[in-house]
Parts: sequence; structure tokens; C-alpha cells
Amino acid sequence: MLINVPETVVADALRGMAAAYPDLTVDVENRVIVRRDAPVAGQVALVSGGGSGHEPLHGGFVGPGMLSAACPGEVFTSPVPDQMARAAAAVDSGAGVLFIVKNYTGDVLNFDMAAELAEDEGIQVAKVLVNDDVAVTDSLYTAGRRGTGATLFVEKIAGAAAAEGQPLERVEAIGRQVNEGSRSFGVALSACTTPAKGTPTFELPDGELELGIGIHGEPGRERRPMMTSGEIADFAVNAILEDMPPRSPVLVLVNGMGATPLLELFGFNAEVQRVLRERGVAVARTLVGNYVTSLDMAGASVTLCQTDEELLRLWDAPVKTPALRWGM
Amino acid sequence: MLINVPETVVADALRGMAAAYPDLTVDVENRVIVRRDAPVAGQVALVSGGGSGHEPLHGGFVGPGMLSAACPGEVFTSPVPDQMARAAAAVDSGAGVLFIVKNYTGDVLNFDMAAELAEDEGIQVAKVLVNDDVAVTDSLYTAGRRGTGATLFVEKIAGAAAAEGQPLERVEAIGRQVNEGSRSFGVALSACTTPAKGTPTFELPDGELELGIGIHGEPGRERRPMMTSGEIADFAVNAILEDMPPRSPVLVLVNGMGATPLLELFGFNAEVQRVLRERGVAVARTLVGNYVTSLDMAGASVTLCQTDEELLRLWDAPVKTPALRWGM
Repeated sequence: MLINVPETVVADALRGMAAAYPDLTVDVENRVIVRRDAPVAGQVALVSGGGSGHEPLHGGFVGPGMLSAACPGEVFTSPVPDQMARAAAAVDSGAGVLFIVKNYTGDVLNFDMAAELAEDEGIQVAKVLVNDDVAVTDSLYTAGRRGTGATLFVEKIAGAAAAEGQPLERVEAIGRQVNEGSRSFGVALSACTTPAKGTPTFELPDGELELGIGIHGEPGRERRPMMTSGEIADFAVNAILEDMPPRSPVLVLVNGMGATPLLELFGFNAEVQRVLRERGVAVARTLVGNYVTSLDMAGASVTLCQTDEELLRLWDAPVKTPALRWGM
Repeated sequence: MLINVPETVVADALRGMAAAYPDLTVDVENRVIVRRDAPVAGQVALVSGGGSGHEPLHGGFVGPGMLSAACPGEVFTSPVPDQMARAAAAVDSGAGVLFIVKNYTGDVLNFDMAAELAEDEGIQVAKVLVNDDVAVTDSLYTAGRRGTGATLFVEKIAGAAAAEGQPLERVEAIGRQVNEGSRSFGVALSACTTPAKGTPTFELPDGELELGIGIHGEPGRERRPMMTSGEIADFAVNAILEDMPPRSPVLVLVNGMGATPLLELFGFNAEVQRVLRERGVAVARTLVGNYVTSLDMAGASVTLCQTDEELLRLWDAPVKTPALRWGM
């Protein structure tokens, strides 16, 4: 691993982000990443966070049109309530704060406590829980479904609504709509290695893959001998469509888990698009890249999000963050 | 690997790019990626290309403000002259075409032949050779120094000059200036696996790293027991500064080889910035991410580019490509 010592991995990364992104204010000690111009008068602020190891999620999504602040925890470990409350205080303009929370037990509890802390300080708080992963219910770290790729859609689309000056209850409603219309399915071709452990977090023999993997290497649905890119796309997309037959054109996220080359990811996208075409699903927009990763895991996930005219307009709205940027 | 069969990896990826980027015209059969609005009247066109496996280089850099077209070869194999000549014909507006060529023997020969083909068709062609890697001279595929991370700087800055309507000889001169003022050094923490071979292209035992690695896994300067991120930054930056003590603020590219998590890459950037500070080198801009990759290789490279007011202005100019986008 390209690290100093496991104990400083997150702080080191925050120092490196601070140097790379002058538009962000990075509080390395308190582990809060804030857009430099926050609070923005008249706008609802969006705060998210979660364990580190999923970069660019969430810190790479801080900026105009998306998150106001992000709180990174230790690797694969929820940030603490103090971080989130501090972030909320830093970005609240008086219009309120929306917490975007991936559905993992630690994150849910800590964001709940942070909401109480923030409300004690007079900050109005709403929450959107992201739980898009159709692979399993009640996994290693989750009651209910896990939150994965849809987080990007929620943060982008709710962020665009906030940037338009829409009120907190509306931004929250849009975030919920995005989550409710989103489904994901992921596969692992290799395990990932956390800095603290230094060895793979689970065993996945060469020549096998895990279908329905989580973003922390939590077990999926089943393990099989290696499949082709086309077979994996069939399995993943069908798993999503069984759960949610889309009633409208979809946003497609073909997301790399970290170590899968972009060359392979684009090939996988071709197969995902083929399956969608065969199943009669119209595609509105497609995003391909490493956005919700799992350290050095090889593999990919597919997320589909149902759109309507309003959501599509908000998706296309300008955004300026380290990892997602267009229109400004 | 997330593929169908090795034989279709490049074609599959091109189909996937076509689906993801409506602003690009992707000719899958002839393997040419062109910006949709080409040729652009009054503008010099930039064409680059090289073996696949380095994505997003080069196809991800096609668009306004950067490349007009890219030609992907087979994995780690030069594209053929016909591809480049076809690309030149597709994008030439009459203002001429600049070929940007990484210094590998196959690429150099094939771009030379392509230039002759294009000139036979009445297209004015100039070339910039990129050879920024200070690690070794005369490597496995190269006479002289290898072309690596500086390619991004040349393509971006020369692309901005072309977008301003500067004439071919000026765009060429700017590209040369960028290359001559750029130096790179890379390290590998693991080997990479090509689809055709299916096993690592070289042996790099756990707990060792290769200093001065090439982007195809060509041997570097030496192999050592694992070093810390800080030690690697010291070694890489010092190797560059020994070769080129910068006389002006630099652009910094901290580039991932493919499989190194962004979390680690940001931590590495913090150490690179520390070394530059200690050595008294002023930093104008920093870019961190996976831009010039080597399939699933773990590792990173550092590229420094000397700037002046003009180069910095061109670096900051708007660009709209899949992998690099700002200001529009």
C-alpha cells in the first residue's frame, strides 16, 4: 500500500485533498471537508459522510451544485456525530441542512445523534436514507438494504435542487424520490485490503467472483466461477429489474470498485447498455467511472435511477466538485 | 478480469464509450474517437493515440480545449498508421493537425508513417514527441526517454492554444515547450495483467516496489523493500529535481497507475507537496487522479511541468472532455 502508517491514512489523504482543491476548506484535525464559500445565503446545505475508502465519495462531491460538506470516518467506519454536527454548523445558512446517510448501522445512529446536536443549536435538519442495493437485506453492517451507488444520484440531484434555492422539505422530498427510484447491484472480482489489516478482508480465489458484493466486501448473494462481462451485466441488470421495472428513462451509473481498469469498465458499460436495450429500458444519461469505490477491490456495480423531467433537469444542472463537474 | 474475451476488449470498450459520451463520435470498427463537432473551422486539430490500457488517456481527453481525436491501439500496442491518418482527415479544418506522440518505438514509427499518409492527402502535419520520464533511458520499448504523465499537460495546454485559434507552428511550439519543461517518475507496488496474457506481466513480490517503473510494466531503476508514502515521494520528486531544477512555479500531476485507491493517492499527494515545499519549489496547480494508467497496476507517478504566465493561462482555459473538464 502507498501509505505512511495505517493510523494516519485518513489525515494524510485530507492534507493531500487540501493541497489539490483550493475551492475546498479541509479541516484535517476535525475531519470535515467544506465548500469554501459556505454557508451560501438562502440555500439548503447538504451534508454527507461515511467511512473512508470509498473515494471520491463523499469528499470528492463537495462543491457548488452538490454537497456543502462531507465527513470522512476512519476506513470503513462511520464518522462520529461531532463531525457531522460541526459540518452542519459550518454550512447552515439558516435554510436548514439535509443529511444524506447511507444505510449502515453505525452511520444511521451517528447521523441521528448529530441531528439532535445540530437541532440543539437551532439548526433545522432533515435526513435522506440511501438504501439502493438489491443484492441482500440485513447484511454484515446493515439492517435492511445497503446504501451504495445511488448516493451519487441523491447527492447530485438534491444538491441541484438546493442550489436553486428550493426549501428544505422539497430538497428532502427530491432526495427521497431519487433513492426510492434507484437500485444497485455490485460484483467483486477480488477482495480489498484495508490499511489497518494489511491483508485482503475476505478470501476470493482467482477465477471466482462474488455476485451482490457490498462496498466493504460484505458477502453478496453467491459465489461463482468467473463469468464474462456480458454474463455479469445480464445478472446485475436483471437483478435490478426484477426488483424495480422502470416506468421511465433511467440514469445509469456503471461504477468501478477501485481496481478495475477503465478499459474494462467501458466494456462492461457496453454490455449493461445491451441488456437494457434488450429489456426495453430507455436510458436518459450514463455515467462511467470509479465513484463509489471499495479501496483496491476489483469489480463493478450498476445503479439505475428512474427519472422524470424534473429529476433529469436537476441531474443536468451545473456542478463543480473534484469528481463531478459540468456546466461551470 | 471484467471482460468477454481478450480479442474484443478494445472494441467492447469503444462501444461502451460511445454509449456514455454523446459528445464523441466513436468509430468502433476503425478505432477512432473524434469530437462530434470536428472539424472546427479555423482551429488546428490535435490527434493523439497509443496502446490501450492507459485510460482515460487518450480517448478520455477528446473534446473542446484538448484533443480533436484519439486512436487506441490494442492493449499496450501502438495504433496503426491508417487509424491516425483517418483521424487526421476527420478533424483537419485546413489549419493543420498536430500529432502528439509518446516516445515508444512503435508509436513513433507509426505516427511518422501516418504523417506521410496525411501529407499525401494535403493535410499539414506537425508532431510533438513526449519523453518526460527521467527514470531510465532506452527502455524495453523506447530509444531515449519514455513518454508518460506529461502527455496530459501537452494535450491540455496545446489543446487550449489550438482552441484559441493559434496557428500550427505556434501550437507545436507550445507543445514542445510543455514537454521540454516536464519530468516524471513512477513507482509500481504491483504488476499489471493484460487481457491477452491473463497473468501479471512481471513478477513483483509482496512487500517490494519498483522505482522508476514504466506505464507498461517496463523495468525501472531498482527494486526495494516497501517504502512509506513519504519515502517514495522523496525519491520520486528528488529524481525529477536532479534532472530539472524548476525555474518557475510548476504544475503537479500526482497520477495513479490504476489500482491504487484515491485515498492513498491523496495521501501521496500530501507527501509530494511536502517535498516540493522543502525543496523550495512553488506549486501553481495540482491535479490528483488516475489519468495515465497501466491497467490494474498499483502505484503512482509524479509529473512536474514548469509554467510561465502563458502556459498557466492555457492550463486554466476551459476544457470539456470525459476525464478533464472545467470552465464549460
